[in-house]
Amino acid sequence: MIEQVKKAKQAALKLATLNTKEKNHALFKIADAIKNNEQTILTENRKDVQKAIKQNLAKALVKRLELNVTKLHEIIAGIKSVAYQKDPIGEVLSKTELDQGLILSKIICPIGLIGVIFESRPDALVQISTLCLKSGNAVILKGGSEAENTNKILFKIIGQASGLENWIQLVETREDVKELLKLDEYINLMIPRGSNALVKYIKNNTKIPVLGHADGICHAYIDKKADLDMAIKIVKDAKTQYCAVCNAIETLLVHKNVAEDILPKIAEALEGVELRGDEATLKIIKAKKTTDKDWKTEYNDLILSIRVVKDLDEAINHINTFGSHHTDTIITRDSAAAEEFMQRVDSSSTLWNCSTRFADGFRYGLGSEVGISTNKIHARGPVGLEGLTIYKYKLIGKGHIVADYDTKKFTHKKLK
Amino acid sequence: MIEQVKKAKQAALKLATLNTKEKNHALFKIADAIKNNEQTILTENRKDVQKAIKQNLAKALVKRLELNVTKLHEIIAGIKSVAYQKDPIGEVLSKTELDQGLILSKIICPIGLIGVIFESRPDALVQISTLCLKSGNAVILKGGSEAENTNKILFKIIGQASGLENWIQLVETREDVKELLKLDEYINLMIPRGSNALVKYIKNNTKIPVLGHADGICHAYIDKKADLDMAIKIVKDAKTQYCAVCNAIETLLVHKNVAEDILPKIAEALEGVELRGDEATLKIIKAKKTTDKDWKTEYNDLILSIRVVKDLDEAINHINTFGSHHTDTIITRDSAAAEEFMQRVDSSSTLWNCSTRFADGFRYGLGSEVGISTNKIHARGPVGLEGLTIYKYKLIGKGHIVADYDTKKFTHKKLK
Repeated sequence: MIEQVKKAKQAALKLATLNTKEKNHALFKIADAIKNNEQTILTENRKDVQKAIKQNLAKALVKRLELNVTKLHEIIAGIKSVAYQKDPIGEVLSKTELDQGLILSKIICPIGLIGVIFESRPDALVQISTLCLKSGNAVILKGGSEAENTNKILFKIIGQASGLENWIQLVETREDVKELLKLDEYINLMIPRGSNALVKYIKNNTKIPVLGHADGICHAYIDKKADLDMAIKIVKDAKTQYCAVCNAIETLLVHKNVAEDILPKIAEALEGVELRGDEATLKIIKAKKTTDKDWKTEYNDLILSIRVVKDLDEAINHINTFGSHHTDTIITRDSAAAEEFMQRVDSSSTLWNCSTRFADGFRYGLGSEVGISTNKIHARGPVGLEGLTIYKYKLIGKGHIVADYDTKKFTHKKLK
Repeated sequence: MIEQVKKAKQAALKLATLNTKEKNHALFKIADAIKNNEQTILTENRKDVQKAIKQNLAKALVKRLELNVTKLHEIIAGIKSVAYQKDPIGEVLSKTELDQGLILSKIICPIGLIGVIFESRPDALVQISTLCLKSGNAVILKGGSEAENTNKILFKIIGQASGLENWIQLVETREDVKELLKLDEYINLMIPRGSNALVKYIKNNTKIPVLGHADGICHAYIDKKADLDMAIKIVKDAKTQYCAVCNAIETLLVHKNVAEDILPKIAEALEGVELRGDEATLKIIKAKKTTDKDWKTEYNDLILSIRVVKDLDEAINHINTFGSHHTDTIITRDSAAAEEFMQRVDSSSTLWNCSTRFADGFRYGLGSEVGISTNKIHARGPVGLEGLTIYKYKLIGKGHIVADYDTKKFTHKKLK
């Protein structure tokens, strides 16, 4: 496998020199090739699906695994949308004259070799590899074994159609993952796409920087000055519109002044949701008693824990203590309280009077999404193409040497 | 120590809410306090210096350790220059209307809690802690034991004078370092300032992201179309102007067409430098034979390894294979060759017709320097204040929920 990784690393250096037209040409070729091989892909996918059914995989997993003509068309449209996205590479971030004839530029460039480990969804393979190609990065992929045949055929088609060598690599076994995680000398960034368990495992077992988030413990806080109808609408959306995702809320915080009024209405609006509450909540509505564990649990299910807080400060502290720094929202008419909440809550997205479910690359207008990051460096929140880039400095002189600046002064004139 | 770290983490949340005026006020108070306590600081420093002399520490180390009135004045000027620097926090990077009344902003904010481990120089303590304060980050410092008394008094003065609580913490023992490196739950970024060995040890023993570089193996490449006089001048500056630093060159690559002409002149210009060369070099000038190890060694000394290459491609491959992705320069009149070199060499700074010694935060016009990074994510090359920042998203709506967008469309109008 080390040979695959070395080849990919070499390919990355070459990919970094391609212009936008060349990269887009490859992307359109890939889109065409997937279209022209629809039947072959669906045949291979059928094998995986049948095996999954035989092995009694959960229905939801089988559904994620299964491709059909509609899904393939979505995949093809996705590739084209990546091609149409602005190429971040080569953008000049800043330009400074250090001295006459000595010009410094800071220029966006690819990161190098990206490792991607994903589970079940074979469409993730296409999405992430085309995003890497667009941003000039080579990629080494490890998909879920349940999608083995689908991943193999997609990998083969993408590699061949691109007309570019070695930039995409596929590894297959669990042993390969262990090896991959050791290759911090070659792999510059690891992106896990899958369960919390997968992300945690990767974060705990590699020195390669990991982009992503393990937990999505998001909160809504209903302030004492909230519009209560709006609050009910937002909480319902944030909890029930799609509860299995990271940006759904797990905990509702309610200001004590409005708890008595709003909690019964919330309970009514969230019919079918299992409610858990602290003691103050239990005095108002019927719910299971929360334990400390609840505040730190991502249910990913129709369960909501509720806590009555005495003020904004207690709400913010609760979120910063028990949350996962992902996405949190305040519902209030009080702009000062909202500003304080958005500033002090230490999360990648802080929201005011809207649903946490908006925290997503597509909805944020970033185009395709690499993932949502709760990291505090490099890229945070929903991450688009720019998360796959870094910058380098280019300095151009006319024979300039440092020794002269014992007496000379730098001009440091900002040109851009 | 965990209590210190937890306190600092709390302080970081508070520091993030301070405005520029409040932070600058604290910085000027610190500068005043250092001025007012010059004698106390020098007395404490004297204890460290005497102990160091007694313990027969290397003269260079003792010199780095020793403070005097001039150095203190430089330290005070440094703090003021940090205060005068533009505050990056709060800058709106982009603003997008997702839909009518639903506005997304991407805003620069502090990272949180920064860990700094440094050796000998007590001025590093002042520089890094004031940079952290300016960027709204709390900081936990571990200094070299040889500067124990100096570090303690500086730490005490800075903490008290700032008028802010708990944002600066000092730990003292080697055992503390081991503990610190485990606290990835609390510490968001680790900055080592010191020897290669220190940086490597930290990189290999923590899950906290590390900003910095272990090796500085920099190259100069003299192209076949180089101005040979310029080449000699640049190579001399890059090797000898200050050889103990990371941005001095360790290896010289020379195009075969010009090797015979220029190598004797280089040897003459670099009198006093130990030259090592590959076979082609040895046919032209007197030098020690290089081994494979030479190409990967940071001498930090008056030693230069020389290799004759057959073309630009071989030069680039040599640098990408053996270099440390730090800083490399090409000397040529051929702009196409220069562009290719600057694009394909995978280093944080790629230079044309100037000395590698320019790769430095002050010379690049960044003001104070956090360090030079060879990372491929977050911050690369000389890193200023912006390396201590990240961004968060703020989304403000009027009761917007995701469920409505099954039918509604986003506007995604760029406002900034």
